[in-house]
Amino acid sequence: MSGADADGAAPRRSIATVCLSGTLTDKLSAASGAGFDGVEIFENDLVAAPFSPAEIRDRCADLGLAVELYQPFRDAEALPPEAFVRVLRRAERKFDVMEDLGAETVLMCSTTSAEAIDDDDLAAEQLHTLADRAGERGLRIAYEALAWGRHVSTWDHSWEIVRRAGHPSLGLCLDSFHVLSRGSDPSAFAAVPADRLFFLQLADAPHLAMDVLQWSRHHRLFPGQGAFDLPGFLRQVLAAGYRGPLSLEVFNDVFRQSDPARTAVDAMRSLIHLEEQLAGTPAAATLRDRLVLSAPPGPPELTGHAFAEIGVDAESGPVLGGVLADLGFAHTGHHRSKPVQRWQQGDATVLLNAAVVLTGDPGQAVVGALAVSSADPDSSAARAEALCAPVLPRTRGPAETDMAAVAAPDGTSVFFARTGGNWMADFLPTGAEPTAATGITGIDHVGLSQPFDHADEAALFYRAVLGLAPETSTEFAAPFGLVRNRTVVDPSRRVRIALSVAVLRRGEWAPCVPDPQYIAFRTGDIVATGRALRAAGVPLLAIPDNYYDDLDARLAIDPARLDALREIGALYDRDAHGEYFHLATEVLGSRVFFSVVQRTGRYAGSGSLDAPVRMAAHRRQRLRALNGSRTDA
Amino acid sequence: MSGADADGAAPRRSIATVCLSGTLTDKLSAASGAGFDGVEIFENDLVAAPFSPAEIRDRCADLGLAVELYQPFRDAEALPPEAFVRVLRRAERKFDVMEDLGAETVLMCSTTSAEAIDDDDLAAEQLHTLADRAGERGLRIAYEALAWGRHVSTWDHSWEIVRRAGHPSLGLCLDSFHVLSRGSDPSAFAAVPADRLFFLQLADAPHLAMDVLQWSRHHRLFPGQGAFDLPGFLRQVLAAGYRGPLSLEVFNDVFRQSDPARTAVDAMRSLIHLEEQLAGTPAAATLRDRLVLSAPPGPPELTGHAFAEIGVDAESGPVLGGVLADLGFAHTGHHRSKPVQRWQQGDATVLLNAAVVLTGDPGQAVVGALAVSSADPDSSAARAEALCAPVLPRTRGPAETDMAAVAAPDGTSVFFARTGGNWMADFLPTGAEPTAATGITGIDHVGLSQPFDHADEAALFYRAVLGLAPETSTEFAAPFGLVRNRTVVDPSRRVRIALSVAVLRRGEWAPCVPDPQYIAFRTGDIVATGRALRAAGVPLLAIPDNYYDDLDARLAIDPARLDALREIGALYDRDAHGEYFHLATEVLGSRVFFSVVQRTGRYAGSGSLDAPVRMAAHRRQRLRALNGSRTDA
Repeated sequence: MSGADADGAAPRRSIATVCLSGTLTDKLSAASGAGFDGVEIFENDLVAAPFSPAEIRDRCADLGLAVELYQPFRDAEALPPEAFVRVLRRAERKFDVMEDLGAETVLMCSTTSAEAIDDDDLAAEQLHTLADRAGERGLRIAYEALAWGRHVSTWDHSWEIVRRAGHPSLGLCLDSFHVLSRGSDPSAFAAVPADRLFFLQLADAPHLAMDVLQWSRHHRLFPGQGAFDLPGFLRQVLAAGYRGPLSLEVFNDVFRQSDPARTAVDAMRSLIHLEEQLAGTPAAATLRDRLVLSAPPGPPELTGHAFAEIGVDAESGPVLGGVLADLGFAHTGHHRSKPVQRWQQGDATVLLNAAVVLTGDPGQAVVGALAVSSADPDSSAARAEALCAPVLPRTRGPAETDMAAVAAPDGTSVFFARTGGNWMADFLPTGAEPTAATGITGIDHVGLSQPFDHADEAALFYRAVLGLAPETSTEFAAPFGLVRNRTVVDPSRRVRIALSVAVLRRGEWAPCVPDPQYIAFRTGDIVATGRALRAAGVPLLAIPDNYYDDLDARLAIDPARLDALREIGALYDRDAHGEYFHLATEVLGSRVFFSVVQRTGRYAGSGSLDAPVRMAAHRRQRLRALNGSRTDA
Repeated sequence: MSGADADGAAPRRSIATVCLSGTLTDKLSAASGAGFDGVEIFENDLVAAPFSPAEIRDRCADLGLAVELYQPFRDAEALPPEAFVRVLRRAERKFDVMEDLGAETVLMCSTTSAEAIDDDDLAAEQLHTLADRAGERGLRIAYEALAWGRHVSTWDHSWEIVRRAGHPSLGLCLDSFHVLSRGSDPSAFAAVPADRLFFLQLADAPHLAMDVLQWSRHHRLFPGQGAFDLPGFLRQVLAAGYRGPLSLEVFNDVFRQSDPARTAVDAMRSLIHLEEQLAGTPAAATLRDRLVLSAPPGPPELTGHAFAEIGVDAESGPVLGGVLADLGFAHTGHHRSKPVQRWQQGDATVLLNAAVVLTGDPGQAVVGALAVSSADPDSSAARAEALCAPVLPRTRGPAETDMAAVAAPDGTSVFFARTGGNWMADFLPTGAEPTAATGITGIDHVGLSQPFDHADEAALFYRAVLGLAPETSTEFAAPFGLVRNRTVVDPSRRVRIALSVAVLRRGEWAPCVPDPQYIAFRTGDIVATGRALRAAGVPLLAIPDNYYDDLDARLAIDPARLDALREIGALYDRDAHGEYFHLATEVLGSRVFFSVVQRTGRYAGSGSLDAPVRMAAHRRQRLRALNGSRTDA
C-alpha cells in the first residue's frame, strides 16, 4: 500500500467509519455493501467492538475492505518532555493495535492541548521521534492541521512542520474541511512533494457562521451536498501527485443516526459524482500521471415533465379525478393493462394509478412517480445506474412502451420518457381531448416532502442523477416547526422539483399537520385561471383576509390587483427578478394537493415566505375534515 | 395599561405567541391554560389566522389574555426620505391592526437594512415622527436593539436614540437575550427613567460560539434553562422602576414543534421560579416600590433516595426479582393492598410494582417512580404544586401512609417521603432482613431517558421542584446518534438524577438501540462488589478487551488495578477531583438495567466518556436476545 498507484488505475475509494451509524459491524457491512475499497477505522468504534484488532483485520479482508487509516491520535506534539514521555508510551500501544489491525497509516491531529508549546521546532522534533518509532514497525504518520488546532491550524503550517521534521515516515493528511473552512488556497499543494502527501480526507459543508469546531463536528456533508468547491480541491490534490485513497470523513448529526447502508450508498454516489466533475475537465489532462476517474454518461437534455403520477385507492381515486375534471383536465385515456387513468390539459399530464399498494385508512393518495422527458432516456437511465440509483423492474404488458425508471431516496419512482416519444401509446383513448379549459399549460414543478434521515441524500440524488442545479434554498418557521425548502431545476427551467423537509424530525404533536406532496401546474394568467377554477367549484384553499392586508402594508401593490388576488385566493411573492402567484387546492385524499402558479420575469424564489400561511390554512381544513364541522381551528 | 402598576401588585405575566407551536388558536389556548395574563402577538401568527384583529381581541378577552404587544415592526428608521415614506404608510396600516387588536404597544427592532444610514439623529428624528403618528392614536412604540442590528446593536445605543427622539410615545424594549448576548451590563438600566421602559422580554440561552442571529433564532430557552443570569437581569430592570409585564420571548426549534399546552406550562414554571429567585433576596427590598413576586415554599432539605420503583409485568417481574436477589437484595416486604414487592440492601430500596399498566409485548419494565426523602414532605409537595407540577391522586387503603406525589415531564412519579418517616409501614414484612450481602449501601442515582420534546422542561422541573443543582452536562456521540446527559444533584450529594436525551429525535434505524433507564447503586469497593456479583451469577454486561487496552494506553493505570477492572468488567473514569467506577447489568425486561458505582474524592463527571462502550455492549446483548443466538453484532 503506498501513496501512488500504478498509472491508469482507478483511485481507491474509502470511507471513515465515523461517517456511519451503528456499531463497527454495522459500519463495515455498510461500507462493503456500497462498494468501498477501504475504510478509516475510528478509534472509538474499535474500542467499543468485541473483536480483537486482528479479528477486525480479518473481517475487513473478508468484506474486501483495506484498513486505509487508523484515527485519530491526538495531542502528540510540542509538549514538555515529561508529557512527551507519556505520548510515546501511548503511541507504542496504538502502534501495537495498528500492526494487529493491518493499518499502515495513523492520523495525528495538530494538538489542541493547553500544555502545548508554540514552538515549531519542538513540534517537528517530537514528530520526528514518533515517526522513527512508527517507521521501525513499517508504519507511517499523517499529520493534519485541525482548523481549531492550538498552534497549528492551517495546512501550510502543518507542512512546514513536516518539512522541518524531514522523516520518511512522516507526511501530511489533507482534509478538505480543515483547508477550505480556513479559506486556504489548495493550489499551493503543488509545492509539496507527492511522496509527502500521505492521506486525503474529503468532506463538504454548508456555509455556516459558527465556531469552526462545532461546524466540523456536526455539519459536514458528503461532497456535492454543501457549499465548498470540492472538485477544485481534489483537482489540486491530484495535480500535486497524490495517488492514495479518496477517503470521505464526514461528521454529521443526521448521518450518525441514519441507516448506515443507505448513508454509505449516498457517500459512494457523492464520490462518483465528484470524480465525474474532474474526469471531463481539461485540468484532468494536466495530472502528472493518468488516473481513471468515474465517468458516468453525462446528463441528457431534459425538456419537461412528461407526467406526474398519483397513487390512489378506491376512495381517493374518484375524489382526485373529480377535482382534475373541475380543474379543466380531460380524462383522455386508460392504461392497456393497469388500472391507471390519464388526465390532460395543455402539456400537463397526470396519471391516477390505482394499481399501487397504499397502506393506511381508505382515502390515501400519494405522488408516487414522476417522469421527465429526456432527449436520451437510455443515457439518463445508464447515468442513474452509474450513480447508484436502484433500477426499478420494468413491468409491462405486450405492446407497451419500455420506460426505464429508478427509485429516488424519498421512494418516488423517476421515469425517463423520450422527448416526443410515444409512451402515450400505452393508453387507450377514451375519446376525450385535452383543451385549454382553464388556461393550465403544463407542470411547473412537483413538490415532494422528504424523509428526515435522507434529505441531503435526496437533494444530491435529484441534482446529480437528473443533472439539475439548485434554484433556491430557504428555511422558514412553519406552524409546526422549521422547514427547509430546496428547489432544483434544469438549465432550461423546464423541469423543477421542490424538496421540503422538517429541520427537526417531527414528533407526535399536530398529527394532522399537512406534510403534503403536490403538483404545481403552470398558467400564463393566474387571475383568469383562478376565476375559472372558482366557477368550476374547485375546492381552493381559503386564504385569510389578514394575509392580503399584510400584503398591502408590505408591498403596496396596485389596489385592483390586490382585489383580484383576494378574490381568487392567490398567494403572491416577488423578488428582484420577477413575480410569483400561486393558488392551492385543499388537501385531497390523505396528503396531496394541486397548485397553479404563474411566474413573471425570472422570479427565482419558491414562495416560501407564504408557505406558513398556506400550511396554517391546510391545517384548518384538515381539522375541519377530522372534526366534521365547519367551525375554525 | 401603563409601565407602572399599583404598589404591591403581582407583575403581569405574558408570553409571545412565537414561543409556542401551532396556529394562533392553539397558542392562545395554551397561554390561557397555563395561567398567563397576556400575550405578545407575533405578526406572522396574525397574518395566517382566519380571524380579523377585532375577533382576535375578543378571543383573547374571552381567554383572560391582554394583548400586551404587537410585534415586530422591522426596518423603520435611519432611512433615506423616499424609503421612510413607505415606512410611514406601512406603519399606518399596522397601527390600524393594533387598534382593532387592542394592542397599545408595538415592538420596533433596530434596523438590519442595507439601506439604513449610520446616523443617530436621523434615526431619532424618524422614530419621533413614527411616535407622533402612534401617539395620535394612543399607541406607543417600544424600540429594541437587535444584537445583530446594522447600526444599533446594544441597548445603551437604543436608549441614546430614544433619549434624543424625546417623545412620550417612544420608549425602550429591553430583551434579556439581546442585552446579555452582547455582554452588556444591566446595572446601567438605572440611568433610564422608568417611564421610558416600555417593555421587557425575557429569554435565557446556553453559551454557544455561533453567529448571534442564529443563536437567538434557534437556541433561546426559558429562564433557568440556559446559562444567562436572568435573576440578575430582572433585578436590574425592576430596580430601574419597570412595572410592565414580564414577557417571555423564546425562539427555540424544539418548542416550535412541541405540544404548546405543555410548553406554556414549562414557560410559566420558569417565570415563577425566576420571580422566586428575586423574591427572597435583599435586593427585592431595594425596589423602588413593592412588587408581589411569586414565592413558593423553599425546597426542604433532601436526605437521600427513599426508593426507586420499577413497573413490571408478569414476565419481567420474576426476572427483575431474580436479578435483585443475585445482586444481594432481600425481598423484605409486600404492600398491604397492591401487588408491590419491596427489595432492600443497605439503604437501597427498590419496589417492583405489578399494579401499573404497561403497554407493549410481555416483558416490559420501566422505572415509573422515584421517592426522595424530604425533611418536610408537605412543603416539598406544596412547592411542586406552586411550580405547576401536576399533583397525582393519592390512592391508599386503610392504614397506609399518605405520601404526596407529582408527575415529572418524563412521566415519572416523584414521591416525597419523610426523612426517617414510617412509609415502610405500608409493607407487610416477609421475614427476610436486608444484609450487606454484596456491599451495596444505597442508591447513588437514577438514570432517566427523557422525551425529546421535553428535555429542557424536564431538566428545569427536576432542578426547580426538588431544589437540585446541575452537576454535569455533556454531549457525546453514541453508536446511534448524539446524546446529551445532564446530572442534577442536591447540595449534600445524596439525591442525584441523571437525565439523558437524544440530541436529534431518533428515527427507525436501530430499533433495538438501548434507550434505557437505570438505577445506580453505590458501593465503597467496586472490586469486592463486582466479584460478589460475578460469583452470584448476576448478568453483568460484557465489556470488550479493546476498552481495557485503550484505558491502559490513555491513562497508564496500575496493572493490577487494570486487571481487576477487566476481571469484573468495570468501566473507569477520572477527573481532577476523583475517580468513578461503574458496572452495568444487561438490560432486563424491555429497558431497565442496574448499575453499581463507586466514587472516590469529589469526582464530578458522569462517566459519559464510556457511555458509548456501554451502549454498544447493550446493543449486542439486545440483538443476541432478539436473534436468539450468541453470535455477535
